[in-house]
Amino acid sequence: MYKIRTNRNEIFESQNESILETMQKHGIYLQASCGGKGSCGRCKVKVTEGVVSSLSFFGISEKEKTSGYVLACQSYPKTDISIEIPERLITVSERISGAKVEIIDKIFTDNPHLFKPLIESMHLSIQPPTIEDSRADFERLKDAVGKNIFIARKTVKILSDYLRENNWQVKFVLSENEFINFLQSDEKIYAIAIDIGTTTVALAIVDLEKGKIVDLATCYNSQIAYGDDVITRIIYAIENLNGLEILRKSVVDDINALINTVKIRNKNSKILYVSLSGNTTMSHIFWGINPKYIREEPYVPVLNHYPLWKASDARLLLDSNVPVYTLPSVAGYIGGDIVSGVLASGIYKNENISLFIDIGTNGEVVIGNKDWLVTASTSAGPCFEGSGINCGMRATEGAIESFTYNKAGDFFKIKVIGNGKPSGICGSGMIDIVSELFTKGIINQKGKFLSESSKYIKMVDDELRFVISEECFISQADVDNIIRAKAAIYAGISTLLEEVGVSEKDIDKVYIAGGFGEFLDIKKAINIGMLPNISEDRFIFLGNTSLAGATLCLLSRQLKDLAEELADKMTYIDLSSSKRFMDEYVSALFLPHTDIERFT
Amino acid sequence: MYKIRTNRNEIFESQNESILETMQKHGIYLQASCGGKGSCGRCKVKVTEGVVSSLSFFGISEKEKTSGYVLACQSYPKTDISIEIPERLITVSERISGAKVEIIDKIFTDNPHLFKPLIESMHLSIQPPTIEDSRADFERLKDAVGKNIFIARKTVKILSDYLRENNWQVKFVLSENEFINFLQSDEKIYAIAIDIGTTTVALAIVDLEKGKIVDLATCYNSQIAYGDDVITRIIYAIENLNGLEILRKSVVDDINALINTVKIRNKNSKILYVSLSGNTTMSHIFWGINPKYIREEPYVPVLNHYPLWKASDARLLLDSNVPVYTLPSVAGYIGGDIVSGVLASGIYKNENISLFIDIGTNGEVVIGNKDWLVTASTSAGPCFEGSGINCGMRATEGAIESFTYNKAGDFFKIKVIGNGKPSGICGSGMIDIVSELFTKGIINQKGKFLSESSKYIKMVDDELRFVISEECFISQADVDNIIRAKAAIYAGISTLLEEVGVSEKDIDKVYIAGGFGEFLDIKKAINIGMLPNISEDRFIFLGNTSLAGATLCLLSRQLKDLAEELADKMTYIDLSSSKRFMDEYVSALFLPHTDIERFT
Repeated sequence: MYKIRTNRNEIFESQNESILETMQKHGIYLQASCGGKGSCGRCKVKVTEGVVSSLSFFGISEKEKTSGYVLACQSYPKTDISIEIPERLITVSERISGAKVEIIDKIFTDNPHLFKPLIESMHLSIQPPTIEDSRADFERLKDAVGKNIFIARKTVKILSDYLRENNWQVKFVLSENEFINFLQSDEKIYAIAIDIGTTTVALAIVDLEKGKIVDLATCYNSQIAYGDDVITRIIYAIENLNGLEILRKSVVDDINALINTVKIRNKNSKILYVSLSGNTTMSHIFWGINPKYIREEPYVPVLNHYPLWKASDARLLLDSNVPVYTLPSVAGYIGGDIVSGVLASGIYKNENISLFIDIGTNGEVVIGNKDWLVTASTSAGPCFEGSGINCGMRATEGAIESFTYNKAGDFFKIKVIGNGKPSGICGSGMIDIVSELFTKGIINQKGKFLSESSKYIKMVDDELRFVISEECFISQADVDNIIRAKAAIYAGISTLLEEVGVSEKDIDKVYIAGGFGEFLDIKKAINIGMLPNISEDRFIFLGNTSLAGATLCLLSRQLKDLAEELADKMTYIDLSSSKRFMDEYVSALFLPHTDIERFT
Repeated sequence: MYKIRTNRNEIFESQNESILETMQKHGIYLQASCGGKGSCGRCKVKVTEGVVSSLSFFGISEKEKTSGYVLACQSYPKTDISIEIPERLITVSERISGAKVEIIDKIFTDNPHLFKPLIESMHLSIQPPTIEDSRADFERLKDAVGKNIFIARKTVKILSDYLRENNWQVKFVLSENEFINFLQSDEKIYAIAIDIGTTTVALAIVDLEKGKIVDLATCYNSQIAYGDDVITRIIYAIENLNGLEILRKSVVDDINALINTVKIRNKNSKILYVSLSGNTTMSHIFWGINPKYIREEPYVPVLNHYPLWKASDARLLLDSNVPVYTLPSVAGYIGGDIVSGVLASGIYKNENISLFIDIGTNGEVVIGNKDWLVTASTSAGPCFEGSGINCGMRATEGAIESFTYNKAGDFFKIKVIGNGKPSGICGSGMIDIVSELFTKGIINQKGKFLSESSKYIKMVDDELRFVISEECFISQADVDNIIRAKAAIYAGISTLLEEVGVSEKDIDKVYIAGGFGEFLDIKKAINIGMLPNISEDRFIFLGNTSLAGATLCLLSRQLKDLAEELADKMTYIDLSSSKRFMDEYVSALFLPHTDIERFT
């Protein structure tokens, strides 16, 4: 038995098991897409002290090996050891992609009548049978509940023993007219909300009695290996033998790993319901439904409103008859995540016109009020979520989240999440960097580095880079990528406003959803021309509204029903074939915009 | 490629396959509980000409081997061969255990409004999507159907391709609000009714469009190996590791073999619904639900009314989402088979009092009219179904079904089903034999053989036998067994009549259900004191009403709903603790009865 000390100063005991297993046992879930078989090469950790024995070094370069990197799943301590776990590997308690708990609290504080979870628990005392009253056990239960209920075969199988062992005192949960499961007397009734993003997967565990999110977990969507955006994923599903199943399994494995994490951290909880929110393609793939027709005109999904299927249908590692509610989609490119966002933002009940913008790998925009809602989608790419940028990462510990540059002194200041050494740049950091470098004349209106403007600009591998630290830099290709992303978002917003004949002045509130959350500097986002030039005080940050909406549906039947109505109420405008959108996009490929008037 | 000639003069070609496989391919399904693995020893056939190569002789005695017996599943022709298949092995087209088709026809001819099958087929033309109307595929389907429907995940997976491949012309079936399956244009919509008896399993395949039974198949319930009656089966389930699962699998394998048989014989049919009728224990075991509390006072089942589970829950070899309707039970010893019988007999709507008697391994009795129904159960044992009697067999080809004895000449006449050589004695034959031997003084009032009374009485293995042929005889133990069975049935009827205060004179009609069907000689059954002394013209034979009732439910939603109501309406009387019943039983252990007055 050896000790493992981590770079977070935790010390764990290893019991003849791999480093990965020790970490998992203690609730530190390292990304390991292959499930710890040594075949994905993702769970790299650096051994800084002590000796380990490694079965394999799959995916580790010679240089990394020399520096002490090993695969956590393949390595066993032979002495006490110290390890460094790269922050990006850890899937727990991310700030990014978390639902803002206060949004949910406020809704139920303001509208207590809405709080009615999708499942209800019952505690009943049932009359034991006698010769005079020999009704069957299930009939006794139904009579006590007072209505006809559906019960799964596997639950019936244990009914009679459960009743007798508990002296006819039963505690169980119902979902509408379906018996879901028995409860032990001290078990808590939990549910899970899942947001499947194209790039990240986030999960909230919800206490249904208290109506609170009690834990969060996030990881990258392992489908990234098969394409950065929904289009490349659909192509993968079409063109590869078993491609759809590979994609489905990737994300379900991710979710199961997150479920495992939250289960370990929240003992004595019984997860009895799941609510799932994602864009249309992600929802299709999650259920193993081929999204191929979403890619072809007229871009129709197989379904927008999903039947209430079961955890076993999805192959989630939960009781087989746990219901899985899927937020409805509006169209092929406006999914349940946006319906969730509309629900969580409340724009569907505002008198005045609001704008809702969800910035993820897709940028979706909704405009409207209590009477109408119009929506469109634009492909931003995954860069703001940390993917496709050399030093990109999610907004976790070690990420540069803000950046200021002093031109006169040619020095800069950075703010790193957790205040430690920077290990990468998250979305808000990227916007800060581009904005500062543009304002201070280090990059021009076209986003090109001016090579002599700062001592931090260096030519590496035939490309100019602004070097922030030994590990962090931003390259010309990165800046180009960020500009394309911001142009897509801006063009989506401006085209939609024109389509509905609303000007920026008419907009009362702008709700920002997505990974950025409160870390986005609005001024700088306007400065680079990503967001329209609207007074900063009208902006409201909502965080991950896909996860928030999924949580709301778990906690309120009325809001779940409303989600179904909203999906049908929203009018979708297809930008992909719009000439106006293409013009807007090309004009927005400058900093801040070709039409500088819009940003003065 | 060799030819196989059977004792029915059929000639089949064998394609490098076992004899069993050749037979199966041509719709002759031999009993092979092990599924053709050579481990049950049941599929014995006799090779009378030609050469076969056998991999194993499991369960075949040296004597049988010398006579040419081989296992059909383990034997391969090496020349053209001739074989003899014992009739009792063949599971097809049995006369016994068949539902009487005319009962069903009459109900729907008299009441055409009742004909409304549990599933409905729809043929719809759906509008293909356009840019202007880009509703999702499933939403288009729902809109065309005109209501919200549930659809399984695996069906959604094929929806979009099906719609496009069929040019948006769709043919499918719905069960209430659930989408069950697509249909190819020439497919027929079939369902299956199953009667699980303690001793025999019967299956009817039903054309739901025509409202007709189109095929029948029957076999023994393989659970026989684990006990003759429901009590011994329950004990087996309780006392053996995995006992319940062994029993469940036995009968489900039997049913799957029968399904296979009818599928082969009825090509181009799609089986889309199942209706299941059995006694309470059989229904529990079929669903893998432990019937243990049925055996303990107060004898309560786990459930009487079954949720609509699926073929996959039952592990039936049908599409996983085919619904399986289970006829409801009344109590631990009055099951869905009796509710079926009440439904099929129509006694629930008669003005006058009727008696319904189902003679199987249990004898169940129902008495009542349109206002009330009272029921009780008595254990007859499996002898009338051909089990537990030395030469017992079901009423198939080769069975002695009637017997007359000429005392003066000391000779007898027999009638054999199919007019061939007798190979055993079925239930009606047993009653005939006991009645004739009693009337003609070959056995006395206690059922004992008078050894010098006939030349056919021989002492074999220390026991007296009446020898009918080389293969057929009836022993003293057989006669004792038959008398116990008839006494149980009579005592059940007489006790119930006394309990409700109805005399034999008050009974307008007596409906006889069970394997006997029309082959039972009422006079002789009264003569031995099995049935009460009621005028013969009041008796009506209904055949297998368990199967008929299950079929009726498939064809009529209203009758299915009525079955649920009838189960609650019937009052159960427990005879097991009744002193009156014990007295009646002991008195009935004579021929015809201790109280001879009752039979004059």
